[in-house]
Amino acid sequence: MPIYNAPLADMRFILNDVFNAEQFWQSNAGLSHIDSATVDAILEEMAKFAQNVTLPLNRSGDEEGARIENGQVYTPAGFKDAFRQFADGGWIGLGADEQWGGQGMPKMLTVLTDEMLFSTNPSFQLYPLLSIGAGMALNSYASEEQKQTYLPKIYSGEWGGTMCLTEPHAGTDLGIIKTKAVANDDGSYSITGTKIFITGGDNDLCENIIHLVLAKTPEAPAGSRGISLFIVPKFLVNEDGSVGERNPVGPGSIEHKMGIKASATCVMNFDGAKGYLVGKENEGLAAMFVMMNYERLSMGIQGIGASEYAYQNAAQYATDRLQGRSATGAKQPEKVADSILVHPDVRRMLLNVRATNEASRAFAVYVGQQLDMTKFCEDQDTVKKANDRVALLTPVAKAYLTDVALNATLDAQMVFGGHGYIREWGMEQCVRDLRIAQIYEGTNGVQAQDLMGRKVVKNGGAFVATYLAEIREFANTLSADLDFIKQATLNSADKLEQVTKLVIENAQGNPDEINAASVDYLHAFGLVSYAYMFAKISAAASQKSGEFYESKLNLAKYFVARMLPELDSRIAKIQAGGALLMQFSPEYFTTYA
Amino acid sequence: MPIYNAPLADMRFILNDVFNAEQFWQSNAGLSHIDSATVDAILEEMAKFAQNVTLPLNRSGDEEGARIENGQVYTPAGFKDAFRQFADGGWIGLGADEQWGGQGMPKMLTVLTDEMLFSTNPSFQLYPLLSIGAGMALNSYASEEQKQTYLPKIYSGEWGGTMCLTEPHAGTDLGIIKTKAVANDDGSYSITGTKIFITGGDNDLCENIIHLVLAKTPEAPAGSRGISLFIVPKFLVNEDGSVGERNPVGPGSIEHKMGIKASATCVMNFDGAKGYLVGKENEGLAAMFVMMNYERLSMGIQGIGASEYAYQNAAQYATDRLQGRSATGAKQPEKVADSILVHPDVRRMLLNVRATNEASRAFAVYVGQQLDMTKFCEDQDTVKKANDRVALLTPVAKAYLTDVALNATLDAQMVFGGHGYIREWGMEQCVRDLRIAQIYEGTNGVQAQDLMGRKVVKNGGAFVATYLAEIREFANTLSADLDFIKQATLNSADKLEQVTKLVIENAQGNPDEINAASVDYLHAFGLVSYAYMFAKISAAASQKSGEFYESKLNLAKYFVARMLPELDSRIAKIQAGGALLMQFSPEYFTTYA
Repeated sequence: MPIYNAPLADMRFILNDVFNAEQFWQSNAGLSHIDSATVDAILEEMAKFAQNVTLPLNRSGDEEGARIENGQVYTPAGFKDAFRQFADGGWIGLGADEQWGGQGMPKMLTVLTDEMLFSTNPSFQLYPLLSIGAGMALNSYASEEQKQTYLPKIYSGEWGGTMCLTEPHAGTDLGIIKTKAVANDDGSYSITGTKIFITGGDNDLCENIIHLVLAKTPEAPAGSRGISLFIVPKFLVNEDGSVGERNPVGPGSIEHKMGIKASATCVMNFDGAKGYLVGKENEGLAAMFVMMNYERLSMGIQGIGASEYAYQNAAQYATDRLQGRSATGAKQPEKVADSILVHPDVRRMLLNVRATNEASRAFAVYVGQQLDMTKFCEDQDTVKKANDRVALLTPVAKAYLTDVALNATLDAQMVFGGHGYIREWGMEQCVRDLRIAQIYEGTNGVQAQDLMGRKVVKNGGAFVATYLAEIREFANTLSADLDFIKQATLNSADKLEQVTKLVIENAQGNPDEINAASVDYLHAFGLVSYAYMFAKISAAASQKSGEFYESKLNLAKYFVARMLPELDSRIAKIQAGGALLMQFSPEYFTTYA
Repeated sequence: MPIYNAPLADMRFILNDVFNAEQFWQSNAGLSHIDSATVDAILEEMAKFAQNVTLPLNRSGDEEGARIENGQVYTPAGFKDAFRQFADGGWIGLGADEQWGGQGMPKMLTVLTDEMLFSTNPSFQLYPLLSIGAGMALNSYASEEQKQTYLPKIYSGEWGGTMCLTEPHAGTDLGIIKTKAVANDDGSYSITGTKIFITGGDNDLCENIIHLVLAKTPEAPAGSRGISLFIVPKFLVNEDGSVGERNPVGPGSIEHKMGIKASATCVMNFDGAKGYLVGKENEGLAAMFVMMNYERLSMGIQGIGASEYAYQNAAQYATDRLQGRSATGAKQPEKVADSILVHPDVRRMLLNVRATNEASRAFAVYVGQQLDMTKFCEDQDTVKKANDRVALLTPVAKAYLTDVALNATLDAQMVFGGHGYIREWGMEQCVRDLRIAQIYEGTNGVQAQDLMGRKVVKNGGAFVATYLAEIREFANTLSADLDFIKQATLNSADKLEQVTKLVIENAQGNPDEINAASVDYLHAFGLVSYAYMFAKISAAASQKSGEFYESKLNLAKYFVARMLPELDSRIAKIQAGGALLMQFSPEYFTTYA
């Protein structure tokens, strides 16, 4: 039976010691009502919910899966009750504006509550996550009337939300979608088309579902400049806000997937369904990207959640499993064998996972703080800088965090030996459930391209330069006893700066050099960012005494010596350039027999 | 619908051009009856079998799975017929001695036929694989009478075989097994105990199943020196060789696994079952390791099989999928979008997979040739050297090939975007099915420990030294136009030599340094070996002209510039040493809340 204990000690350390969160909140008017005691109470409540409500439904949800009967999707046993508890606890609106029934809590906190849900039941967590994302897009682009109609119902959990982008022939390339929106006389539109991979496209958790749908009007320009965003409710909403007649939109089928089986991934058919324009015609993609960027950071948090869950179970298994003896002599001679924790390679796997988790968590809180600055700070220069930083780091948060998390869960699974491959121990489900996080909301390759192309090359490296300046400034404040992380951080920052320049130069002559470098650049960028996080963690830990803090420093040393060396190989691959990739004819790839 | 075309062109190139197989066969008496035409015909027949018989059962086998009813295991629909065709085709005995009904074909060939089966249906392939392994152990250690009783029935496919090692509390550490063997008056033994993770432990493919079981006699010494090997048939065998009464051994349940769901993984209960000693008491582990080492190379081939299948499907998908435009201008302007093959990062993923496959295949044939030398060469010095080489390379073939194959299948899955995560395209099953190859037959961590400890440090690096001498000797024969691979091979050999010395020295002072270095050393060793394989491939390709051969050279260049750089980071991690791993208290690992 898999275990989970919310890592509250590390979460508190990161908020309070690493990021001085309370000081940040108190110094910003929009957050000054928030204090550490409130935040701590919320973390503890969520820990209970995750441990007692969502964790017990994780395996049964995987085994039962979502199912469709007569055009209605049903979630696995227990999900409906859990969702009701979740909604009644006010969790859906935790980070939403109080005006619409939310609690106005900062992102620095919700990245941590989200992590607990992703640790214990990623399929469950996807249902409210999509609702929250839809709420954010509406909050940014919908009319006042639309907000009043939909937002309070979404945050109360009465209604759910989805994002409907992908079509069978159009995933990454949304410019070629075919779903049509034809204006009706009453100001609404008639939406017709098929969308696929729609998370929570139908379910039995909410009395109504608000689909946010990308579609093209008949006269729309070709490509991504001709995409509009529509609200398409499952049931039309009456004047008084009550649920009215069924709109002709519904699930055609649900996908059979590798994992997140309790999350209904639907093919959605829109057969002249009534839709309401959000914002202006042809400007739908910008609105959708409010939601998309929120989901992208969330996917990174899915990575942390899975990897933390994997760590805890693998560490417990390694402690309990007796097999073989230490190479330096029996450590538990009274037992038939030693715990496998005596073997350095078992520790290597566990430490890889733990170092990944602690750096990833710090990074998520860091990005959360930047997001809070964009929303709550009054100084416009600060807001501008934070917006640029969020733009730069969103693809990293989505793709790097999930890439390293998959490796981490694979390491944790390996600790179990054969037991990691069977259902009973939960590890194989953890790997299967996590794998999607590298794929959806834009594959990690697409994220890397976004980073390298739009966020680095396009602005001539300006965003990276300010980020590296911040990193160097911080590293230079470190005291002599932290020289190991100071030098590692400064050196890796130099390497990233040099390779950034190289790619920008190469791209002038050949734009293919951007995509040729992108994934290795993403990983180089992630490694430098994690060195920065360990610099911050080390600075905070060195101010305290006790094993908890000493271990933080030791883990930072482990990261520097046994994980950060990957940076050099990533840089060497970037330096090799793109010609090696493009030298093969298209036919080469399918000629092998 | 997933595709598969046996990569016969590459297989022929490796056998004929890279390894001059016919010349090798003709110069060894035991193999002189073999010629390229025969081998080619066998490859073509197996290609047909794999494409037409096992491939169509791969997805249905996964969906249906093996099942147990009233103590009898049933394989999925179609498996029984396919197994009968396989047996009737003489495939089970392809590499077995003609004396027992085999065809006496070399391992250099069967690594390639095995690959096709693993590409198209790994669950199916495991059933005959275990039979063949059991046959090999019996051929080496059983009495003449036992051989006559069991081997012809195994190679005809009438009877199957299993290996029964693992128990709930004893996996890697076989010294602590509890299964008991008590001598009966008639010279047989009474076997009692529980074994887990028994592949094909029961099935409906064969009329009888011959279990090879590790157990301890009452007076046996403690640990691995007190383990004996027994034949325990599902049905006792009558004097005339016919199947007699049921032996009290059978499956208690089958595991629910991440993948290879059509392969029945059984909990086996032995309730005083009649067993027959193989070889001598307390010397059972050596006999079992004949089978184990065979299976270990086979698991490496499982890696190649999965990765080849993944490559072909991903390359086809990438060719067909139209999405976005080339950064250098539309390549298919007449279509709605360009094939995603125009994107360098898609090519990066495909080339990673393809380079992995071609180097892995060459390496498997190389190891196969060494195994053939141990069996068929008359010169005892050659046999001794080949035995040492096989000992050195077996853990590499098992662990490195499956580690790189998992990464390759993950890359291939990513090429599909969201479609890679759903059942329809076959990629998610491919990843799930392959994952076990890193775990079973000794986890890859255990393989790495075997390499670093028993095969490197224990003999003071002697086996590595002769291997590196061979690599350098070959690299030095390369002509000037192959300088890119010559220098890369020589440089990486130097690096491996230096780090080998370092670990041997460190281990003198602290034996934990062996296990602390082992996995990174395995990967460094694998990278050097693949550089050697690409040196051989390049030498052969440079003798010919045409796109096929030019592409081999281009792929070698890709490997050197964009894959081999990982070597430096592996070495840096080894150099960091083990103290970083051992500095944490055991309690640290389970303290996180």
